[in-house]
Amino acid sequence: MRYASYWYGGKPGFGLVSGSGIIDLSRRFPRFASLRECLELGVLDTLAAQCSDFEPDHGIEDVQFDLPVPFPEKIICVGINYPARNEEYRDGSSTPGYPSLFVRFPGSLAGHRCPIVCPEESDMLDYEGELALVIGIGGRRIKEQDALKHLAGLSLCNDGTVRDWARHAKFNVTQGKNFDNSGSMGPWLVRYQRPEQLTDIQLTTRINGEVRQQDRTGRMLFSPSRLIAYISAFTTLKPGDVIVTGTPVGSGVRLTPPKFLQPGDVVEVSATGIGRLENTVVT
Amino acid sequence: MRYASYWYGGKPGFGLVSGSGIIDLSRRFPRFASLRECLELGVLDTLAAQCSDFEPDHGIEDVQFDLPVPFPEKIICVGINYPARNEEYRDGSSTPGYPSLFVRFPGSLAGHRCPIVCPEESDMLDYEGELALVIGIGGRRIKEQDALKHLAGLSLCNDGTVRDWARHAKFNVTQGKNFDNSGSMGPWLVRYQRPEQLTDIQLTTRINGEVRQQDRTGRMLFSPSRLIAYISAFTTLKPGDVIVTGTPVGSGVRLTPPKFLQPGDVVEVSATGIGRLENTVVT
Repeated sequence: MRYASYWYGGKPGFGLVSGSGIIDLSRRFPRFASLRECLELGVLDTLAAQCSDFEPDHGIEDVQFDLPVPFPEKIICVGINYPARNEEYRDGSSTPGYPSLFVRFPGSLAGHRCPIVCPEESDMLDYEGELALVIGIGGRRIKEQDALKHLAGLSLCNDGTVRDWARHAKFNVTQGKNFDNSGSMGPWLVRYQRPEQLTDIQLTTRINGEVRQQDRTGRMLFSPSRLIAYISAFTTLKPGDVIVTGTPVGSGVRLTPPKFLQPGDVVEVSATGIGRLENTVVT
Repeated sequence: MRYASYWYGGKPGFGLVSGSGIIDLSRRFPRFASLRECLELGVLDTLAAQCSDFEPDHGIEDVQFDLPVPFPEKIICVGINYPARNEEYRDGSSTPGYPSLFVRFPGSLAGHRCPIVCPEESDMLDYEGELALVIGIGGRRIKEQDALKHLAGLSLCNDGTVRDWARHAKFNVTQGKNFDNSGSMGPWLVRYQRPEQLTDIQLTTRINGEVRQQDRTGRMLFSPSRLIAYISAFTTLKPGDVIVTGTPVGSGVRLTPPKFLQPGDVVEVSATGIGRLENTVVT
């Protein structure tokens, strides 16, 4: 089951992705305001089951994709989570004992097929393809062995980074990670049902068709279960919250010479069983 | 004019603080859902003007204070913004050219007089008294000379920090700044009308009545106007967003020996013209 949030006819909606179309759940069940509310109330699968045989209402090309869950309370991103990423920093530090975490605001991420923006303040916009975990059942101090029960589904993220601004400050990368529409999330939320969907899938980032990043989620330093347990040790996770799980080696700044994104470039992040998130860079 | 958000009789509300009571605006104007919505619609002063002569509806002791603006989209905090703070890190680095920014989630902050929580994961909960700026009129790429026109008002924050968790990761202090109810904000929002309210007021933090931090806002490394301009260069500020402007020297971890917060401790953050934010530490 794949769920998307989108704009259609000037209004926000959400629905079930079916083949090359979308079955509009928001129109059929207007008492639920958003995908986030459906997650909070635990009704998503029930709604979908009532409609899954219907003909699509909208062509997939006819909607403007929003983030899978628009306006989540929290988008928490992991800084260094794949082998050899720590070494890319060349600062001589050992592999970290805990994940490095930063925060993105929803406005920093565009939906699938929406433009991502190279800001006038920098010419160092970079890509980072990542797997995103969407929380379905909230909680605090979730045990690692229970963590995946709290997962609603999976999505993809281009954790786009304005490199020079990420280094403005002594600590913290906040400003480099939060330029409006400097990254993207989507294309949709794939419901999590089986460990095989997550434990060792291939994650690939392409720029204009060229593979720049490719790794397997099984090689994460901190597994999805461990991330959920660690993060929920300090903050109460809520339905719709997103954990973006870190990027493999090969982002543009690490290449010799560095290759930053240019207007017209097409960024694609894809993963087995989830789909392909595609965005074009504009100024 | 001082505005507060609170719980009364099991329901969320907001109102105008008047002497030792609160004039309930949410009950009189039920079409406005929250203080944040009043800011978005620009109606706050109009509503208040219609009621300012009324008798208070609630005693100030009878409400449970919430954050001045509950659930803002963004709470952006400045890491190092008073003289001698950079030297406290003893890492030999020079005064930074840009502010260090991190993010707090709303759940990490308790309202005025609500308990702040020393979590079981650490015995290193610390205080940081700070001035908070609440955005009234949103915007992107706001010019420094126009910045204060975007300010709705002022509040206070105890940017409470779990010190060992703030150092878990190579970069970023996210986890140490986001334990549920590890800090506080309030007591209310004081409407910003004149530069004198902001440019050089005294900011004091007391623990059990003892002054631990005291400085003047005129000594900030990055002024409120510069912070608004810098932050809005990358992200669109929205009504209700909060910028927490950094803490003076003297937090517990910097004392010799360090003095962390203990259950029963009373943390007070006060500033000229704004008021006093008070919270008691619990386990």
